[in-house]
Amino acid sequence: MTRLAIGVDLGGTQVRAALVEEGGAIVARAETDTDAMAGPQAVLAQIEALAHGLAGTVDPARIVGVGVSTPGPVDTLTGVASDIPTLAGFAGFPLLAELRKRFGQPVSLENDGIAAAIGEWQFGAGQSLDHIVYVTVSTGIGGGVISDKRVVRGRKGMAGHVGHMVLEPCGAACPCGGLGCFEAYASGTALARRGRAAAAAHPGSFSGMACEAVDGRAIFAADRAGDPVAVRLVDEQAEWLGRGFVNLLHVYSPDIIVMGGGIAQEFDRLRPGIEAYIAQHAMPAFRDVPVLRAALGANSGLVGSAALAFLDRSQGK
Amino acid sequence: MTRLAIGVDLGGTQVRAALVEEGGAIVARAETDTDAMAGPQAVLAQIEALAHGLAGTVDPARIVGVGVSTPGPVDTLTGVASDIPTLAGFAGFPLLAELRKRFGQPVSLENDGIAAAIGEWQFGAGQSLDHIVYVTVSTGIGGGVISDKRVVRGRKGMAGHVGHMVLEPCGAACPCGGLGCFEAYASGTALARRGRAAAAAHPGSFSGMACEAVDGRAIFAADRAGDPVAVRLVDEQAEWLGRGFVNLLHVYSPDIIVMGGGIAQEFDRLRPGIEAYIAQHAMPAFRDVPVLRAALGANSGLVGSAALAFLDRSQGK
Repeated sequence: MTRLAIGVDLGGTQVRAALVEEGGAIVARAETDTDAMAGPQAVLAQIEALAHGLAGTVDPARIVGVGVSTPGPVDTLTGVASDIPTLAGFAGFPLLAELRKRFGQPVSLENDGIAAAIGEWQFGAGQSLDHIVYVTVSTGIGGGVISDKRVVRGRKGMAGHVGHMVLEPCGAACPCGGLGCFEAYASGTALARRGRAAAAAHPGSFSGMACEAVDGRAIFAADRAGDPVAVRLVDEQAEWLGRGFVNLLHVYSPDIIVMGGGIAQEFDRLRPGIEAYIAQHAMPAFRDVPVLRAALGANSGLVGSAALAFLDRSQGK
Repeated sequence: MTRLAIGVDLGGTQVRAALVEEGGAIVARAETDTDAMAGPQAVLAQIEALAHGLAGTVDPARIVGVGVSTPGPVDTLTGVASDIPTLAGFAGFPLLAELRKRFGQPVSLENDGIAAAIGEWQFGAGQSLDHIVYVTVSTGIGGGVISDKRVVRGRKGMAGHVGHMVLEPCGAACPCGGLGCFEAYASGTALARRGRAAAAAHPGSFSGMACEAVDGRAIFAADRAGDPVAVRLVDEQAEWLGRGFVNLLHVYSPDIIVMGGGIAQEFDRLRPGIEAYIAQHAMPAFRDVPVLRAALGANSGLVGSAALAFLDRSQGK
């Protein structure tokens, strides 16, 4: 019987859990809406219930451990959350210690961007590569890095906060409190904001849709229909992604950049603009690095957290 | 007898070599002006002459190998230079293979920013730390990163090109061909350029010095004399450094940032402005990371290349 790990992807909207085989296949899965305002013990009870439900379907001896992907920043060395903006009551909460109390087996904890990077490295678009930068482009922008066949964790396990590179000093306000971050320009939230402003400025664009109703989905739909305002917004979105990715190429020198998150559903549309930007603006030695879509889709972090559990066990942690 | 390594710092202006003890102490050193236009074989002959001169003073059995720090970018995995803008004729040159032909002992090769980071990690400001970002601020801006007790090399060994993070899209032209890079704003060259422009715009500043004569040294001297134009230039310089460093904190999460290079001679003047910028603009979890001056001064790369030779031997390379 192959060994299994339980992967848990804790998010502000959903808690998802999966039983994952050592080869990366999801055997069973379960999910529930996150009780985000109820405090940490309620959320931990949700994680425990999902995980135990899955574990109950197989021989417990097959399960090597539990990996948990969490929104951050969490100090994954001490296991203490510094703050989780999307979940109430987690500031200073000893997340790893409390998880270990609830599970009768080893628990590994990872910031969500790094967990997803591990998933794509072990089982997705970056399999068998030595150097990977993973970027999730969704409500915000997060990421994680594998360099020289190892996870780059940094102090407190907080490396890879790639959404908070400043690309435009004194630029747009970012949820982090800063100005001009990559996230403030290239996230799905930023795209939607630009879309609403463009709809207000160009009556008749988006087939006359009320500007408040314009979101990422509407922008890509109007782009496909040839709406020139939407086409320009999407081209700009690709350019902003290119800007951030060029910086990441220079700073990390990866073999590939893997793009995940909701906006990656439109990767085929964005890719030519991203690649054109890199071809024009990266230093010559970095121009041939490909940008690929996350192969695991919405499951990069879910499978990655299970992969983390396998990795940690194989290293005797 | 303690073991020794020969460290070589190949630069566009000088070739420097040193005999370095395992504890980091320089036992002997030698240097010469780089014959930068004479082609790679002439430069290699310079390196060989310096190294053999030093090696001849000690028992050869004590020398474990040679480490060479090179301007880049050089693919340190294959050892082939992609191009070295400051040295003629190195594009496509098999630098490591040619070095090995000339030495009867192991040779290690590293891009200069990474070599200096290794020096500061092993023997300088970052001793005993797990995560270090080293930034050299000089004619240009380079760097190197230690994360999780390991050198971050990336594809082709080209990670850490931190000078080419874009901080200002469509901003100032950078020698790399890009626009708005960290180097284009915060290098010594960029500071001098701003100084000349300010001197031209403010007659009487810099004690009436001809604007063409304004360089970094003159700017810091005028700042010390209370010249308000110079004070503002230096304050801006600290702010630009802060901008780049905030990005590096978020991306790498180091224990410290170490600043080297010629501009670091003025570190005490710049530090408060850098720290104020970080305190205001970094995400809270990263605000307490100190910025320190390189402890090895101009020798970070020289000692670092020797440290690389020790590290590689200890790893059986």
